Amino acid sequence: MYLLLDEKGNSYLIKGETDFHSKYGVINAEELRGKTPGESIESHTGRRFSVLEPGKLDYIRKARKGPQSVTLKDLGLITAHTCISSGSRVVDAGTGSGIMAMYLSNLVYPQKLVTYEIREDFAEIARGNFRKAGIENIELRLDDIYEGIKEKELDLITLDLPEPWRVIEHARESLKPGGYLVSYSPSINQSKKLFDCLEGFRSETLECLSRNWNMETVRPHSRMLGHSGFLSFARLVEKN
Amino acid sequence: MYLLLDEKGNSYLIKGETDFHSKYGVINAEELRGKTPGESIESHTGRRFSVLEPGKLDYIRKARKGPQSVTLKDLGLITAHTCISSGSRVVDAGTGSGIMAMYLSNLVYPQKLVTYEIREDFAEIARGNFRKAGIENIELRLDDIYEGIKEKELDLITLDLPEPWRVIEHARESLKPGGYLVSYSPSINQSKKLFDCLEGFRSETLECLSRNWNMETVRPHSRMLGHSGFLSFARLVEKN
Amino acid sequence: MYLLLDEKGNSYLIKGETDFHSKYGVINAEELRGKTPGESIESHTGRRFSVLEPGKLDYIRKARKGPQSVTLKDLGLITAHTCISSGSRVVDAGTGSGIMAMYLSNLVYPQKLVTYEIREDFAEIARGNFRKAGIENIELRLDDIYEGIKEKELDLITLDLPEPWRVIEHARESLKPGGYLVSYSPSINQSKKLFDCLEGFRSETLECLSRNWNMETVRPHSRMLGHSGFLSFARLVEKN
Amino acid sequence: MYLLLDEKGNSYLIKGETDFHSKYGVINAEELRGKTPGESIESHTGRRFSVLEPGKLDYIRKARKGPQSVTLKDLGLITAHTCISSGSRVVDAGTGSGIMAMYLSNLVYPQKLVTYEIREDFAEIARGNFRKAGIENIELRLDDIYEGIKEKELDLITLDLPEPWRVIEHARESLKPGGYLVSYSPSINQSKKLFDCLEGFRSETLECLSRNWNMETVRPHSRMLGHSGFLSFARLVEKN
Repeated sequence: MYLLLDEKGNSYLIKGETDFHSKYGVINAEELRGKTPGESIESHTGRRFSVLEPGKLDYIRKARKGPQSVTLKDLGLITAHTCISSGSRVVDAGTGSGIMAMYLSNLVYPQKLVTYEIREDFAEIARGNFRKAGIENIELRLDDIYEGIKEKELDLITLDLPEPWRVIEHARESLKPGGYLVSYSPSINQSKKLFDCLEGFRSETLECLSRNWNMETVRPHSRMLGHSGFLSFARLVEKN
Repeated sequence: MYLLLDEKGNSYLIKGETDFHSKYGVINAEELRGKTPGESIESHTGRRFSVLEPGKLDYIRKARKGPQSVTLKDLGLITAHTCISSGSRVVDAGTGSGIMAMYLSNLVYPQKLVTYEIREDFAEIARGNFRKAGIENIELRLDDIYEGIKEKELDLITLDLPEPWRVIEHARESLKPGGYLVSYSPSINQSKKLFDCLEGFRSETLECLSRNWNMETVRPHSRMLGHSGFLSFARLVEKN
Repeated sequence: MYLLLDEKGNSYLIKGETDFHSKYGVINAEELRGKTPGESIESHTGRRFSVLEPGKLDYIRKARKGPQSVTLKDLGLITAHTCISSGSRVVDAGTGSGIMAMYLSNLVYPQKLVTYEIREDFAEIARGNFRKAGIENIELRLDDIYEGIKEKELDLITLDLPEPWRVIEHARESLKPGGYLVSYSPSINQSKKLFDCLEGFRSETLECLSRNWNMETVRPHSRMLGHSGFLSFARLVEKN
Repeated sequence: MYLLLDEKGNSYLIKGETDFHSKYGVINAEELRGKTPGESIESHTGRRFSVLEPGKLDYIRKARKGPQSVTLKDLGLITAHTCISSGSRVVDAGTGSGIMAMYLSNLVYPQKLVTYEIREDFAEIARGNFRKAGIENIELRLDDIYEGIKEKELDLITLDLPEPWRVIEHARESLKPGGYLVSYSPSINQSKKLFDCLEGFRSETLECLSRNWNMETVRPHSRMLGHSGFLSFARLVEKN
């Protein structure tokens, strides 16, 4: 796979098996395959593209997504507020288009990440995203996490579900002492209901706003995402 | 090491070698050593504490810090916008109290993280923090990164320095194609000057606000950190 | 009354009847009374103060306040989203320390602003604030607005009350068609309950964050108010 | 003039001289003229509209605007941080589409507000907006405020100009002691340059973020204005 970047800041993830027709002209496949990452290539109209080897982040950015997919700022907050890393045991639900699973699987590698989804149509989209990104350490279960979690001794459970409070009892069984249940909810009402049901957990709820600056003019961009979701971090402190 | 949590939400990181005198009474060391994580213990006045095994995050939270230490939200943003993980080759400068290095070393483990610091007094604080956290994959260099970077083929360079633009040429040599230079600066003027000096990089500058909610009353807390630093992400796209 | 500003940016509202002992030395009362606004005066230790005639804003800033007093940013939002001005008929409740009433009375002058308060202790604080600011167009009623609003044909009703929904029926009677009911609530739950009870109104709920910059270093201040209250603007569109 | 509100929350400002063709059917002009504010009217397809008498805010919302027009949150902040009201002497520049002038003229009425604009095309748009709103207390000068301000004894000067620092000397002459120079700038660089040129003023620079909530689902809207402009408030404290 190749990552091409044009002069306008757009990026393209391509296989390089056939010529690539961009709006700035055609990139010849054979010439592209002769390039080393960090070199540039010209289209037939003379426009320049940078050639890179795509990283995990590029696959995540280019993955097929639903309208409410978790954002990078929230993925970052989850990482920093749980400190998971290689070897961490993580379960995720619902898979949706698989963005959360893709991101987390990269962090815990070579540990396997398990993700639960009940809808076969979502699972199919997610599997496609995993395949394109060459990710092999994700196990997608077509199962209802409200019914239970098979995995035990977990460091982290991440939820992007309409009724996260229905997972609390299972989380208590499956988390290690000190492990985290993290729930991502668009409505503060969901966070509140989760909060009211937590017992034996220490929790905090926060939201994160990220703002991009235009550094040519040294001003924030007018367009900004005003809200993605509220993140609740519940740490299991008492395990019976 | 033990992590104790009292009923008010305060946490204590202790060795358990001697009795611990908290403001809610004394915790007996011998009794503590008999506890399993997830159990609770009572002080001599009958106040209850939860007992946990501390994780990396607990050591980071309890580390000795300078006044402008990088925050969790910013550490998270760096992780998410670069997707580094186990095995990633990362250089950090300046070390300061070592928070950034502690956090990153956990992500790249077992890969060694290299951090540059010119001030011996800061280095000493950082070494103390690494030691307490039991971190062994950090190499602290008492060196001036403005003078050069010895490491090559890097995935990420993180900077928390007054003049980050002085590292650009070294970063160009030391980063892999597609690798990231990330600079954390309190003033937008520093970000602007960095931006104006970048060539052969694709960059974006952003800031992140994180807001905690009081879930008893369902309102954001009044106290909030209005600013930590601006984060500039510069990706090396052209390597000569 | 005189407004003195010292070199550090602090301001002092004084009568000038007796010498003023500041931490930068003593200001002589007689000398002060000889000054014209825009001139400066020196303390006995040679520190310089600017002398101004205080404006309404200075009295508001210096008024005695409760812990949850409405902020300038919220007062501004109320003004801009209702466009009240001289002659507008406004009722306010509860008075609290009277900040909202002071601010609104200045806008509607010479129209009288009516403010309801049930607690005599709060009313006493508010009256003191009005007196010091020389405000005469406020009528403070020691009455429970939940029981009814005597005034009719109102342009605006502002509420800073724990149960604002109990005023909706009275507001419907007392507002002009097109008039506004504005409620300021710390908890989003209060705003939600109000929202669910509104009928015949068009409403929107918003919150406002204001961030100060340090222009010496060109960075936002670290300290920031993370939350004051949610503002709900309900416009009466159907009057039976 | 009539303000019609449909069931979807859209509003329409119409003269009522001819039938109004909305996307929800035709409103009969004669029937409309028989309505009292607060009543409702049906279109020929049976859709209901509320009928109101438009207020100043409705004219501002419906005015013809440029792409970077000042927002309500910023107008509010200017009001609250200066406490201008009926009788205040205010000069505004540049007029642009006249939104700032419309808003301020309502506050200072019956005092005349003066607004400077050098571009005849902008002035023409602004005059159209003033006329439609029935505003008569605005004097639009086709003049360059960088060259001087004729008005004296001002309480407030508001600037929405590319080089606000060029007005400082004129402001010093024209403001009352204690009066305010307020500058609205998209780029923090403009605010910084203004700040560096202020002498004899006390200033603060701030920015304001306003976020709307969806109260059906109790979550902030995803769409949000990430930036309009930085507001610098400079108060003249020393008048030579």
